[in-house]
Amino acid sequence: MESAFKLDPQLAADTVPVTDLAVSRVLLNDDANYPWLILVPRRTEMVELIDLNDADRATLWSEIALASRVLKEVTRCHKLNVAQLGNQVAQLHIHIIARDKTDAAWPAPVWGKAPRKTYDVAARKVLIDAIRSGL
Amino acid sequence: MESAFKLDPQLAADTVPVTDLAVSRVLLNDDANYPWLILVPRRTEMVELIDLNDADRATLWSEIALASRVLKEVTRCHKLNVAQLGNQVAQLHIHIIARDKTDAAWPAPVWGKAPRKTYDVAARKVLIDAIRSGL
Repeated sequence: MESAFKLDPQLAADTVPVTDLAVSRVLLNDDANYPWLILVPRRTEMVELIDLNDADRATLWSEIALASRVLKEVTRCHKLNVAQLGNQVAQLHIHIIARDKTDAAWPAPVWGKAPRKTYDVAARKVLIDAIRSGL
Repeated sequence: MESAFKLDPQLAADTVPVTDLAVSRVLLNDDANYPWLILVPRRTEMVELIDLNDADRATLWSEIALASRVLKEVTRCHKLNVAQLGNQVAQLHIHIIARDKTDAAWPAPVWGKAPRKTYDVAARKVLIDAIRSGL
């Protein structure tokens, strides 16, 4: 099923690619308000976590843990937020967001709070390189 | 570590117990706006998913999948939302929420949207019994 995988156009427009893991494509949400990874299993027609087969779901869980550890190490954040919502973009994707007590939405969840903020391109590259080298 | 486990007082106040699985205590959030389970690993001093050891985290992942399937079957919801946030209550807990296109927050995430709504006690019992028998 992987060969037919196509990233949802909205996810593609909102993110920058980081790397591919065994199951997931790892993306950085292009919003400088929060260091924010999005993992998209490279499988077709998946909407819920329970749509994945057991092997893929187990691998995804390891990839979520790995990406969480790396994001926490790189950002030294106060808290991680991990979520699978999919109310607006149906393609299965998992948010892993580094939260700090000084960020634009704290302590609320990030969705619908602060307008998207443009990254400094050099700072974004440093962040992506650090995350990629940890994955 | 299980013997020392104590449910956070805020989580206790906001929920009704459903059952205990191998790792998680399963709670129903006492908010009739959305059928909403909360899974709390019965372990002490856990804040992040990555704080759990590998065995507990793997079991928790199975319990999230099981609770997701049961909640979807019982409610026939349009979408599941699964999230670990913990910005306000530090004790590690996982939200599994049944969403419908007609609910009080759709398509936004549920947090901070609609005021808590009281369940009809008999309807709540029917819901809890159905979920418990599926788990």
